[in-house]
Amino acid sequence: MSSSRHDQYREEVLGRANVADTPELVAYYERLESLGTAALWTVANKIEPWEPVPSSVPMLWRYDDLREDVLKALDLVTPEQAGRRVIYFDNPGRSDVSAAVGWLYSGLQVMGPGEVASSHRHSASALRFIMEGQGAFTNVDGHKMTLGANDFVLTPNGTWHEHGVAEDGTTCIWQDGLDIPLMNALEANFYEVHPDLSQAISYPVDDSTAKWASAGLKPAGENWSKPYSPLLKYEWAPTYEALSKLAKVSDGSAFDGILMDYINPQTGGPVMQTIGASMQMLRPGEKTKAHRQTGNFVYQCAKGSGHSIINGQRFDWKERDVFVVPAWLYHEHANASDSEDACLFAFHDLPVMRALGLYREEAFAENGGHQPILS
Amino acid sequence: MSSSRHDQYREEVLGRANVADTPELVAYYERLESLGTAALWTVANKIEPWEPVPSSVPMLWRYDDLREDVLKALDLVTPEQAGRRVIYFDNPGRSDVSAAVGWLYSGLQVMGPGEVASSHRHSASALRFIMEGQGAFTNVDGHKMTLGANDFVLTPNGTWHEHGVAEDGTTCIWQDGLDIPLMNALEANFYEVHPDLSQAISYPVDDSTAKWASAGLKPAGENWSKPYSPLLKYEWAPTYEALSKLAKVSDGSAFDGILMDYINPQTGGPVMQTIGASMQMLRPGEKTKAHRQTGNFVYQCAKGSGHSIINGQRFDWKERDVFVVPAWLYHEHANASDSEDACLFAFHDLPVMRALGLYREEAFAENGGHQPILS
Amino acid sequence: MSSSRHDQYREEVLGRANVADTPELVAYYERLESLGTAALWTVANKIEPWEPVPSSVPMLWRYDDLREDVLKALDLVTPEQAGRRVIYFDNPGRSDVSAAVGWLYSGLQVMGPGEVASSHRHSASALRFIMEGQGAFTNVDGHKMTLGANDFVLTPNGTWHEHGVAEDGTTCIWQDGLDIPLMNALEANFYEVHPDLSQAISYPVDDSTAKWASAGLKPAGENWSKPYSPLLKYEWAPTYEALSKLAKVSDGSAFDGILMDYINPQTGGPVMQTIGASMQMLRPGEKTKAHRQTGNFVYQCAKGSGHSIINGQRFDWKERDVFVVPAWLYHEHANASDSEDACLFAFHDLPVMRALGLYREEAFAENGGHQPILS
Amino acid sequence: MSSSRHDQYREEVLGRANVADTPELVAYYERLESLGTAALWTVANKIEPWEPVPSSVPMLWRYDDLREDVLKALDLVTPEQAGRRVIYFDNPGRSDVSAAVGWLYSGLQVMGPGEVASSHRHSASALRFIMEGQGAFTNVDGHKMTLGANDFVLTPNGTWHEHGVAEDGTTCIWQDGLDIPLMNALEANFYEVHPDLSQAISYPVDDSTAKWASAGLKPAGENWSKPYSPLLKYEWAPTYEALSKLAKVSDGSAFDGILMDYINPQTGGPVMQTIGASMQMLRPGEKTKAHRQTGNFVYQCAKGSGHSIINGQRFDWKERDVFVVPAWLYHEHANASDSEDACLFAFHDLPVMRALGLYREEAFAENGGHQPILS
Ligand SMILES: [Fe+2]
Ligand SMILES: [Fe+2]
Ligand SMILES: [Fe+2]
Ligand SMILES: [Fe+2]
Ligand SMILES: [Fe+2]
Ligand SMILES: [Fe+2]
Ligand SMILES: [Fe+2]
Ligand SMILES: [Fe+2]
Repeated sequence: MSSSRHDQYREEVLGRANVADTPELVAYYERLESLGTAALWTVANKIEPWEPVPSSVPMLWRYDDLREDVLKALDLVTPEQAGRRVIYFDNPGRSDVSAAVGWLYSGLQVMGPGEVASSHRHSASALRFIMEGQGAFTNVDGHKMTLGANDFVLTPNGTWHEHGVAEDGTTCIWQDGLDIPLMNALEANFYEVHPDLSQAISYPVDDSTAKWASAGLKPAGENWSKPYSPLLKYEWAPTYEALSKLAKVSDGSAFDGILMDYINPQTGGPVMQTIGASMQMLRPGEKTKAHRQTGNFVYQCAKGSGHSIINGQRFDWKERDVFVVPAWLYHEHANASDSEDACLFAFHDLPVMRALGLYREEAFAENGGHQPILS
Repeated sequence: MSSSRHDQYREEVLGRANVADTPELVAYYERLESLGTAALWTVANKIEPWEPVPSSVPMLWRYDDLREDVLKALDLVTPEQAGRRVIYFDNPGRSDVSAAVGWLYSGLQVMGPGEVASSHRHSASALRFIMEGQGAFTNVDGHKMTLGANDFVLTPNGTWHEHGVAEDGTTCIWQDGLDIPLMNALEANFYEVHPDLSQAISYPVDDSTAKWASAGLKPAGENWSKPYSPLLKYEWAPTYEALSKLAKVSDGSAFDGILMDYINPQTGGPVMQTIGASMQMLRPGEKTKAHRQTGNFVYQCAKGSGHSIINGQRFDWKERDVFVVPAWLYHEHANASDSEDACLFAFHDLPVMRALGLYREEAFAENGGHQPILS
Repeated sequence: MSSSRHDQYREEVLGRANVADTPELVAYYERLESLGTAALWTVANKIEPWEPVPSSVPMLWRYDDLREDVLKALDLVTPEQAGRRVIYFDNPGRSDVSAAVGWLYSGLQVMGPGEVASSHRHSASALRFIMEGQGAFTNVDGHKMTLGANDFVLTPNGTWHEHGVAEDGTTCIWQDGLDIPLMNALEANFYEVHPDLSQAISYPVDDSTAKWASAGLKPAGENWSKPYSPLLKYEWAPTYEALSKLAKVSDGSAFDGILMDYINPQTGGPVMQTIGASMQMLRPGEKTKAHRQTGNFVYQCAKGSGHSIINGQRFDWKERDVFVVPAWLYHEHANASDSEDACLFAFHDLPVMRALGLYREEAFAENGGHQPILS
Repeated sequence: MSSSRHDQYREEVLGRANVADTPELVAYYERLESLGTAALWTVANKIEPWEPVPSSVPMLWRYDDLREDVLKALDLVTPEQAGRRVIYFDNPGRSDVSAAVGWLYSGLQVMGPGEVASSHRHSASALRFIMEGQGAFTNVDGHKMTLGANDFVLTPNGTWHEHGVAEDGTTCIWQDGLDIPLMNALEANFYEVHPDLSQAISYPVDDSTAKWASAGLKPAGENWSKPYSPLLKYEWAPTYEALSKLAKVSDGSAFDGILMDYINPQTGGPVMQTIGASMQMLRPGEKTKAHRQTGNFVYQCAKGSGHSIINGQRFDWKERDVFVVPAWLYHEHANASDSEDACLFAFHDLPVMRALGLYREEAFAENGGHQPILS
């Protein structure tokens, strides 16, 4: 904490630190430093801001810009060399921790027919959202799941998992989402390679949906006590149907339109302890109002096109584009079409915010709820 | 507690009461009685049995036997006169409390086109299981639901509810299930007639399923905190599909075949606090093993035919027949068909058993798990 | 359900059953009866009362009246013969189920120095409240506890337990409280005699309080998951001190004065799943207002004297007297002294009411909250 | 993410990234960078370490070294200028976030008689542990608490709080513990100065302990639903008595001796959502074995003297010294005395680890459980 000045964070507000440097104080600060200590009032206003100012920046990554380079990775590295063949989203404000936004990592993984990545497990919770291709699969603790476009699949903290594409499939691309940066920040990240590099298929293929994807029903005698959803795969067709049904009986949210959270059907809570996810539908012509939330969001457009205004900045998106909303920045969404709905998949760290008592949200109060566009 | 003898419950077992009457003791017992007291050892073995012996008897009611008389009630009483036009199942061991089994009441309600029963609410939890007819509906706290055969609908403790049949419907019969006897036994039964005798339809028709019947998804921002399921109607088609899917990936239960519990999708728990329900499929040729459970069960055959052996007694059933399994009696089920599946709907008081720490089950240990048939 | 008349429960209220007998209907009822059924409207108003009317009657048992006969039992029966040497409270409205009130059993147990009752366990939850004598002890699952006057001790559902008095003790009397009647009503009562008739002392004596009776602290690494309190004994001295401290900072309840619930320190909830308990202090001169609650209460005066008015009837009590308040009857309490506080121990079935969603209470609205005294 | 080399994290292990730079790949990496992306395999082994390596260093701060400078702050700044007059512990590995260890902040606050710090609230959870002086107090949401040496007091997330020393008190020093760094890292830190700079005393002084510090009892009718303990102050005398009692019936933990967690008496869980605390007693001559845990610990010696070995480094401590154990470093403790016990207060972020499913611990397997001392 050596610095020529110690009074750079002064505020002229009652109740805040406001101590000017003097030679005597500077000498005092230097002695404190030699003892492995410092004076709180020299940093208090810095470490206790009035409200969060995220270090992440709002960003959008256009799939059109990335797809070719993602595919090119097929030629450049093998899964064996790379571990996982992924191009990740590198937020300029979070490059030091390889995050897309906040403490969330995300990237695009590409695999060709017959390829399989080695099995492993880690403390980071992970999910995948399928973007294109036929024949992708994931094996989570012996539960093999087949995957199609817009399917959403979990690989929770501590589960053995491996991904691949069937021999008779096509090149597949999916979005990975993990909280690797959070696990590192919390110094709780463990990683293991599966002793056999590959795990067995221990259950009938897609048994997870056969058992747990029946609304309002559960297999008797199955006492699920793990801290994540027993339903590991959420398919697109029933998800889109659910949104369509909800739209018929609900006005939805002023900020998000028709928004459904993916849940653990055994608890009604989030799918994993540290990452939640949702799918939302913006109805034809819908334009939501702005609000801000603690927590970070990674969006992928699953259907249609539109734009979002984040902290006054407009980002236009269409199917497969990815964008991020950093914590406590106002954001609002608009569907570009007056005839088609648009759907946004999102994953976020709200389960962390809620588990720790930190979730807040606030509506944008002025201008009818719409931000002025700054750029 | 006046009785000529006080030693009728003696047992010659160490640790059990075993006191013979003497003139001195009888005089003592009489003085105790005059003080509003009694000696525990005169009744201890009676009130602390080694294991439960239910007062209910196993029974089956054949729909063919009842249907005509149920329909006849249409001519005999109006809903206005009767409150509800129901013929109830009167277990010979439980006539004093009007129970079908244990503390569970059940009956067959019949309504004609255009009829509506008056709106009311009560502490008893209630459910309906539709047997025949077109156009039945229930309105629960303003949520109107349309009902078809084998649909299962809740009217939880404290909710305003009314039933009826649409003007353009046909005569409908459904099974009612309630825990009226339990509420009376617990001296906690309250009853109110709706001030207007009828309640408004406050939401889009069938909004409950539109919002809550999407597996693994929930409407964001809906924070359900009531002690019963927000999903009030469980339709037959998805229920049967769920059983069929489960049958493909699960061996099921040795005692119940392919059994799914109806659940509150927000908790994974039972649909109401005092009554649970399930639907089970006996696969072609399936014959389960016997077990016994604390708690009482009311079954209705929803599809196919077969038989159950309850406490050594065989009961043959087919679609729409109703039968009951009293607490702690061994029971096993068999599908009569080698080519078709058979389905049994059941409701029960296991949520009470579980909430109070009293649930137990035990497999029948002998004879390969099958009871000898006594009658 | 044979009866000459079937219309004895008619009510002239819209929404209630109101069907007069006719020859045709009576013939119909008889046919229904032959089918093991009956018409709901003949009993609907009986089984769905407007509000609970308890079958128990309010009662008070004076210790002065009972003590001599309780002690006499020492000469009349041995613990070996009697199992437990207890004189129980026999509510005239509940004699058929040996209950003191509702589904709660209670009695006075007496043991002499050196006597021990045989070890056993059962589904009924049990408690003891010590009234007089030195050297009483209870052993619950190997945890031996020493007991003094006004100490309260648990023997939860399923725990092995035995009671006795030390060789160098004196004759001891305590009040037993159990929910034997409820367990029987729910047909879930199991009873086992310990194979050795006696169990080992497996832990340091009074380890339960040494581990769990420290407010705001718990032994690290002890992960208690049983459905009852790990703290098995609640001693009188800290309980009385707790009430005294609370009285200094709280106005207390209008209905109960300074009332504290005994809790499971791991959950803040009731001590056992089916029985709760409390101790309350009526301050000098305190006279509470009347209210009524679902659930049944057994009181013992632990200190001082006063009276309670239950359903308009006055009951005067002093130390060691026992009285009961049946469900949904208004009750209010008064301390007889203007200088000393009075304390009432109570146990009740509110945990059952709450677990099943049936708890209600209501203040007496007239006359400044005080009932007219009828007797 | 610009760097001359991209293959610095290669590992020669199957399942790990192992891609050497080539001119073609470097060109590819540069294009990815221009798109706001990067290749996962260039950083995978860095961001997915095999196990945590904390950035914090083990440290001890001797009170003898600091006390004089802490007191000197009385002369250098007023509470009005400083906000709070605190010298904080500045871990060399965590200077950028002003943390003592991990994401935990800690410092020594000093106040003179009659001084009061202005009232405020923030998202950071906070606690104080009193070190010396008479007359200290804290007001939390209107609950004023008087504080003595070794008392532990909470100021949870979102509560208004202010500290001071009575006019007739003496200079007081206490240790502050907060998770300010975590709140900042999670970008969820809000800060408010109380509109009046001071808040009212809304309840009887010390009402929190009068209501909630009675073991196994709670004030009836108080339904506490806030996510932190209603008991806000944990006094030293009953805490030390609790440890002494536990020591008589428990062998304690091989790693921690007699260790008790401060708990929320309504849940049995940690005192706040993001910070837990404990007090432990090392019995005379006790020397514990080494283990390591996810989560970070700040210790203060509350009584006696001894040493701890952290990651092979020995730290000798006596009363009032503060030391820290970073995540996943082995640590063991020893009492210096063969006749007196030694007590360590600790606070930590285990509630965060547990809420997010990240808690792990591991015993040191070699050398009888004792680390070799490296320094
Ligand atoms: Fe992974
Ligand atoms: Fe949002
Ligand atoms: Fe009803
Ligand atoms: Fe069964
Ligand atoms: Fe017993
Ligand atoms: Fe009461
Ligand atoms: Fe603060
Ligand atoms: Fe440790």
